[in-house]
Amino acid sequence: MPSYSPPTKDMKFILESVLRVYETDIPGYKDIDSDFIAAVLNESGKLAQNVMTPLNSIGDTDGCTYENGVVRTPKGFKEAFEELKAGGWTGLDCDPDYGGQGLPIVVASAVTEIFSSANMAFSMYQGLTHGAYSAIHAHGSAEQKQKYLPKMVSCEWTGTMNLTEPHCGTDLGLMYTKATPQDNDSYDITGQKIFISAGDHDLAENIIHLVLAKIEGAPKGIKGVSLFIVPKFLVNEDGAIGQRNFVSVSKIEEKMGIHGNATCVMNYDGATGYLLGEAHKGLRAMFTMMNEARLGVGVQGYAQAEVAYQNALEYSKARLQGRDVTGVKNPSDPADPLIVHPDIRRNLMEQKSFVEGARAFTLWGANLIDRHQRLNDSDADGLVSLLTPVIKGFLTDKGFDMCIQAQQVYGGHGYIEEWGMSQFARDARIAMIYEGANGIQALDLVGRKLSQDGGKHVMGFFELIREFSSTQKGHNDTFDKQFLDPLERGSKDLKAAALYFMKNGLKNPNDALAGSYDFMHMFGHVCLGLMWARMAKASFEALDNGADDIVFYETKIATGRYYMSRQLPSTAMHLARIESGADPVMAINAASF
Amino acid sequence: MPSYSPPTKDMKFILESVLRVYETDIPGYKDIDSDFIAAVLNESGKLAQNVMTPLNSIGDTDGCTYENGVVRTPKGFKEAFEELKAGGWTGLDCDPDYGGQGLPIVVASAVTEIFSSANMAFSMYQGLTHGAYSAIHAHGSAEQKQKYLPKMVSCEWTGTMNLTEPHCGTDLGLMYTKATPQDNDSYDITGQKIFISAGDHDLAENIIHLVLAKIEGAPKGIKGVSLFIVPKFLVNEDGAIGQRNFVSVSKIEEKMGIHGNATCVMNYDGATGYLLGEAHKGLRAMFTMMNEARLGVGVQGYAQAEVAYQNALEYSKARLQGRDVTGVKNPSDPADPLIVHPDIRRNLMEQKSFVEGARAFTLWGANLIDRHQRLNDSDADGLVSLLTPVIKGFLTDKGFDMCIQAQQVYGGHGYIEEWGMSQFARDARIAMIYEGANGIQALDLVGRKLSQDGGKHVMGFFELIREFSSTQKGHNDTFDKQFLDPLERGSKDLKAAALYFMKNGLKNPNDALAGSYDFMHMFGHVCLGLMWARMAKASFEALDNGADDIVFYETKIATGRYYMSRQLPSTAMHLARIESGADPVMAINAASF
Repeated sequence: MPSYSPPTKDMKFILESVLRVYETDIPGYKDIDSDFIAAVLNESGKLAQNVMTPLNSIGDTDGCTYENGVVRTPKGFKEAFEELKAGGWTGLDCDPDYGGQGLPIVVASAVTEIFSSANMAFSMYQGLTHGAYSAIHAHGSAEQKQKYLPKMVSCEWTGTMNLTEPHCGTDLGLMYTKATPQDNDSYDITGQKIFISAGDHDLAENIIHLVLAKIEGAPKGIKGVSLFIVPKFLVNEDGAIGQRNFVSVSKIEEKMGIHGNATCVMNYDGATGYLLGEAHKGLRAMFTMMNEARLGVGVQGYAQAEVAYQNALEYSKARLQGRDVTGVKNPSDPADPLIVHPDIRRNLMEQKSFVEGARAFTLWGANLIDRHQRLNDSDADGLVSLLTPVIKGFLTDKGFDMCIQAQQVYGGHGYIEEWGMSQFARDARIAMIYEGANGIQALDLVGRKLSQDGGKHVMGFFELIREFSSTQKGHNDTFDKQFLDPLERGSKDLKAAALYFMKNGLKNPNDALAGSYDFMHMFGHVCLGLMWARMAKASFEALDNGADDIVFYETKIATGRYYMSRQLPSTAMHLARIESGADPVMAINAASF
Repeated sequence: MPSYSPPTKDMKFILESVLRVYETDIPGYKDIDSDFIAAVLNESGKLAQNVMTPLNSIGDTDGCTYENGVVRTPKGFKEAFEELKAGGWTGLDCDPDYGGQGLPIVVASAVTEIFSSANMAFSMYQGLTHGAYSAIHAHGSAEQKQKYLPKMVSCEWTGTMNLTEPHCGTDLGLMYTKATPQDNDSYDITGQKIFISAGDHDLAENIIHLVLAKIEGAPKGIKGVSLFIVPKFLVNEDGAIGQRNFVSVSKIEEKMGIHGNATCVMNYDGATGYLLGEAHKGLRAMFTMMNEARLGVGVQGYAQAEVAYQNALEYSKARLQGRDVTGVKNPSDPADPLIVHPDIRRNLMEQKSFVEGARAFTLWGANLIDRHQRLNDSDADGLVSLLTPVIKGFLTDKGFDMCIQAQQVYGGHGYIEEWGMSQFARDARIAMIYEGANGIQALDLVGRKLSQDGGKHVMGFFELIREFSSTQKGHNDTFDKQFLDPLERGSKDLKAAALYFMKNGLKNPNDALAGSYDFMHMFGHVCLGLMWARMAKASFEALDNGADDIVFYETKIATGRYYMSRQLPSTAMHLARIESGADPVMAINAASF
């Protein structure tokens, strides 16, 4: 049975020494001092470790059940959900006007990682509710907010997002689900939605479905799509639960992982729905919460890698197999632990350097969202919009890869379910797909975000690296050589790729699109390179200032050095692939494949 | 439900136009003319398509069952196994003296791919029997061969390999299983073995276990390990099935995939065993069949990628989503097929160029094994020994990655089990682990094979590329530029890495070992680059000679061009990683992780 221990020390390091949250001018940040952060992380960590982790494998093995139209969650989930609610963990960064705690997203995001590492399927019930909360908060009428939000903040009611239909996922303009206006300002919603996570369950007394549908007579395609609130049970004027709505679950899916979260086929048969935001602008309403939602999925990607890494590391220290070629390390036993072997070490360093870099990257992203939301900083918004597809796409791709590598450390024991390593990989796999498959993230990055506001944000990103480099250079040779130089090389490659797109993409958009996936990955590497440079800088400073925990900072620097020397140089490969253009990709006729 | 169609045309192209099997001097190759190859591939293809493919998902869903010590295979497996036997498919490359058909391994290997693509778990029953057959064939006494081989060739009896114990997998010197000599030339075998594929089932009347154990008083460690034949039922003098041996199954494992093949915990409680080969030389006996067995696992890796690719390709043509940015391709429908999108195309080309390259590489490896076995060619043996860890390690890593990419084409539909894409990935995952985890393959490559016979074989490999390049250059500019130039660059990178190991590995073995995994991958890329150059050359020739099937050859060249321009350049990245040395990998103290 795998174990999990919340990486609170690393989170505190990032928040306090790298992002320096107390020093920023963001309203609300000053309140989150070191003790407060410690309390939040430690308490959420206890809940994760003691309540959620033990249910992770049960959720996988037992899964959700569907019988006579009713979905039941695995044994223990209900009690754990009550604990989650009782602790006030469901509304950390929600609006205090509706019962939330109003904490910055940068703190909530760390807690999301902890819960997601402990039990991804379980934490999704809350995560999806938060997504629906955000949409209603941003676009709902005063009445709608008052009616739904307090119960959703407390997770007495949970939420879902209904986008996909059997014949359309990415291309939502094709959807069939219809909304017909009724006399009383409501709509009759009819259609089928699939892949609805947490679409039904026994954890809450009501479920607030947000459903995309087309109002009769709406413009064709994506511009005719509206968003509706469709509660499982209608809510009376007084806020009490009313009659059952005409929404039902016809099936739950058998899937590769996240068995503890029911993926439902939802049927809306003349269900009562209420327009959320403006008619025909449903997709825009969805997009306003996209950055946050996609950041959350990026967190899931590296959160699974974190817990998989923790277990692989333990196993590599405990399992005795073979001898260190440079000399016996463990003479009292017949073999040395796996961790002495360089290729096991390479594997572990790959995981460690990714996860810690990913954590810093994501918390930086959350920090930017806070800056936008709390200071109305449009540059921060532009930058995080640019980085969002990278956070989602790169971190989930790599997060999955790292779960596979962690599984590999176990040899045959990694393949059998008993040790739990297979579940981490199977659960992590979905994060590459949902909330916009990673190919769509790459398209969003190259097709939209690069050129947004005249390319201002990507130029801002390069400027940020240049400025960091120029201000930090010349104080510490080791730092310059091991961190700044590789960062500059990586950044140069990324710039060359962006330039290639600009030069060729106008003539032939395929020249840009054929390189989009590689661009997303090289962008991810450069971002992690930047985060590692920042973390290394903070660590060198701490050492210079005589910090107590020398081992922590030295290990941090060594981990960063691994990333800079063995991961970041892959930007050159991605650039070579991009510069080969669309021709090798598109040469074959579809019929000739 | 996924479909499968045997890639016989591509196999024939490789055998006939690239390896030119009829023209070689290998005994037996002249008999396998074009019609014969077509017959073998078509007939095995029918069996695969009609009988094995439909059972693949059933095997995954139902799995094997264990009740009261008895293991049962999924519904339909028994009937399918009877068809396999009746068709004579179990002894294709086995010795005619024992009922085999004596065909070259190069042909059998193509059939292995077909069966493995159709149903990996099912085909393992035969595959493991073949492994045990080979060991007995190479090391058994005349009596042992007569007693066991005919029944194993026909798969009336199946076979297993018993190496792993709970506390030792790679480091077999640690094993506990004991062999105590008895009066009658037999041994009493006592111990527990785990992860025994096909350890028990209902497909055959007897199972011949090959078991590694230590004879009492044997030297310590790996040099004290012997190999034993331990039949499930003892075999009487007259060849009839005798009494039940003291071997039992105490459990079958729940695992990530290959559910149709039981992975057993085997208990030997004073079971009767017979020494196979010499005492204390059990591991050497296992090694003699290693090249073949590891080649077989390499086949599994790309065979799963092949079938996953076929389905992803079909899906990408059928699923309508979004519009081609360069202009609508499918005006009669509301959207274009996925395959118009450059990033989907990139994904498909990645798969296609890998699978076809991997097939050529493996068949070349099989060709070398034939050359060694049939001509006693020690250079061929040395070369294939060098290539074997690359075939096993690189092709299973990449094969799994390609299954993940194929799954990605399906979006959410790839994650639910209904479409079968998850199974391909889950099944393929084991190939990276068993028959020596891929880290061990990398160690074997760098630690043993590179320096074998004074480095003769790796130098032979480089010479082979140099000779190919120099003889082919100057006839066709396109070919030179698109194929030979990248091949030379890749080969140069690989040489530089080998040189780095030679220069640094003696001083610090970790400098070589920390780069071993990257070396295995860059070696794989260079091998596939070589195969693509050879395939392109054959295709250009066919076109020059006025071949009918222009589209086939042009597509082949375009696919190769993709590999050369978008895959092979990754050798530079691997080289950079290798040349960063052991320091970044080993810098952190085990306790400080």
